[in-house]
Amino acid sequence: MDYNQLFEQIKKKKSFLCVGLDTDITKIPSFLLKEDDPIFEFNKRIIDTTAQYTIAYKPNIAFYEANGVLGWKSLEKTINYINLIHKDIFVIADAKRGDIGNTSKMYARAYFEQFNCDAVTVTPYMGKDSVSPFLEFNNKWVILLALTSNESAKDFQLLEVNNSEKNLFETVVAKSSEWGNKNNLMYVVGATQSVYLKKVRELIPEHFLLIPGVGTQGGSLKEVAEHGMNDSCGLLVNSSRSIIYADSSTDFDRKAGNVARELHIQMADLLKAKNII
Amino acid sequence: MDYNQLFEQIKKKKSFLCVGLDTDITKIPSFLLKEDDPIFEFNKRIIDTTAQYTIAYKPNIAFYEANGVLGWKSLEKTINYINLIHKDIFVIADAKRGDIGNTSKMYARAYFEQFNCDAVTVTPYMGKDSVSPFLEFNNKWVILLALTSNESAKDFQLLEVNNSEKNLFETVVAKSSEWGNKNNLMYVVGATQSVYLKKVRELIPEHFLLIPGVGTQGGSLKEVAEHGMNDSCGLLVNSSRSIIYADSSTDFDRKAGNVARELHIQMADLLKAKNII
Repeated sequence: MDYNQLFEQIKKKKSFLCVGLDTDITKIPSFLLKEDDPIFEFNKRIIDTTAQYTIAYKPNIAFYEANGVLGWKSLEKTINYINLIHKDIFVIADAKRGDIGNTSKMYARAYFEQFNCDAVTVTPYMGKDSVSPFLEFNNKWVILLALTSNESAKDFQLLEVNNSEKNLFETVVAKSSEWGNKNNLMYVVGATQSVYLKKVRELIPEHFLLIPGVGTQGGSLKEVAEHGMNDSCGLLVNSSRSIIYADSSTDFDRKAGNVARELHIQMADLLKAKNII
Repeated sequence: MDYNQLFEQIKKKKSFLCVGLDTDITKIPSFLLKEDDPIFEFNKRIIDTTAQYTIAYKPNIAFYEANGVLGWKSLEKTINYINLIHKDIFVIADAKRGDIGNTSKMYARAYFEQFNCDAVTVTPYMGKDSVSPFLEFNNKWVILLALTSNESAKDFQLLEVNNSEKNLFETVVAKSSEWGNKNNLMYVVGATQSVYLKKVRELIPEHFLLIPGVGTQGGSLKEVAEHGMNDSCGLLVNSSRSIIYADSSTDFDRKAGNVARELHIQMADLLKAKNII
């Protein structure tokens, strides 16, 4: 999926919602535990009730990896299901990978070839040659960590570098934006840090931003739209736990759909206010 | 395995060699392709001929992940084989993981519980709360990226921060050394950057360092020992491709063993020169 196709989906669905599939076997409704693959069953039902409000799904790879080989099977089935039943939905592997060149190439193969995701989150610490191998795949995306939504983001991301009054995360954005372009590179900017969104938009007015931290982590959707939205929307706002764990009864999937619909309604209003739809 | 047990192994085997299992199906001897699991067969034979010279094995997770579910099976079998047959060998999951707290906890479970590794490499960009969940496991280790061996390490790791004349990687070492201790925290310092080893040793004289980049990437073992060795050795020096791909004939495993033995001999000399053995 390219930049324009993503924007078309946003206009068509009146939403810029990404649903995070952080599926934890200890948190899913207990009646699902009798299934052969409870994690996949949970995801499938969540997908079925949220897909109409959703632009992207973001499986959080750690939650699958924690279950070893079985976890990777659940992940594979989940991604295949989205790609088969909901072809127009963007799939983000939230993996936060990155290594020396020949190794990053292997990670890129894993997510773009083995699992056929549209995008993978990548960590910038090792620099250009750790990111470039992901950028060489046609119609696939890197989503690079800039400013993350966790408390400790400040430890290094907010350090001022090279006497420039620029923070590390701004330097990451400025430098890395030369490695790719708005068609293959997005950035993670935590919604809990929306005060910094303006700074990011000055550096990269056109790129898409993936915004985690709305919902359980406390970020405000309105503030994010105010500081981060551009003429092509330019935002994917993620919510994970507040949607997928909205309810733990047999009706959990419908309740999850309701939360997603609420967010979709708020998002449609924000898109209208910006004259995008 | 704790700090002292690791040091005991180094003295007993007269080696501080780590063998990187970056096993690529396109690079292993073709006669192995008829096996049910060629990757595991390759690893098993490499392990059998190198174990006597080796303190640690370091499967590079990307190379397994690139093969999807089958790759995770090969990884699981490889780690189980080491833990069963060579109990005293330290197993490092070279995964370069790191995410918000609840997610890092899942990665920690994957490598410390599902796969029973001794250590996992972690990337520092997201700060303390992304690293701490890995430090909460008894007798398990974080190996945090400080200065990596790739050309682009300079993009961010060498930036000067907060007008301190300190580089980012030094700040990472200084700050993170307060999160753990020499019993649960090591650092990656690229051998191609041995000029910086001295700076690291000033900050953390006692911690173990994992040194990649000796061999194919061009680092010098003698320089590494000169600047990085402490009274408990304090070094694990990794070599991957120059050992495991030393030869592509049916005799590949014996040849790999020869290269490992050569490194072991050099390492024994360096340990003697330091009066450690």
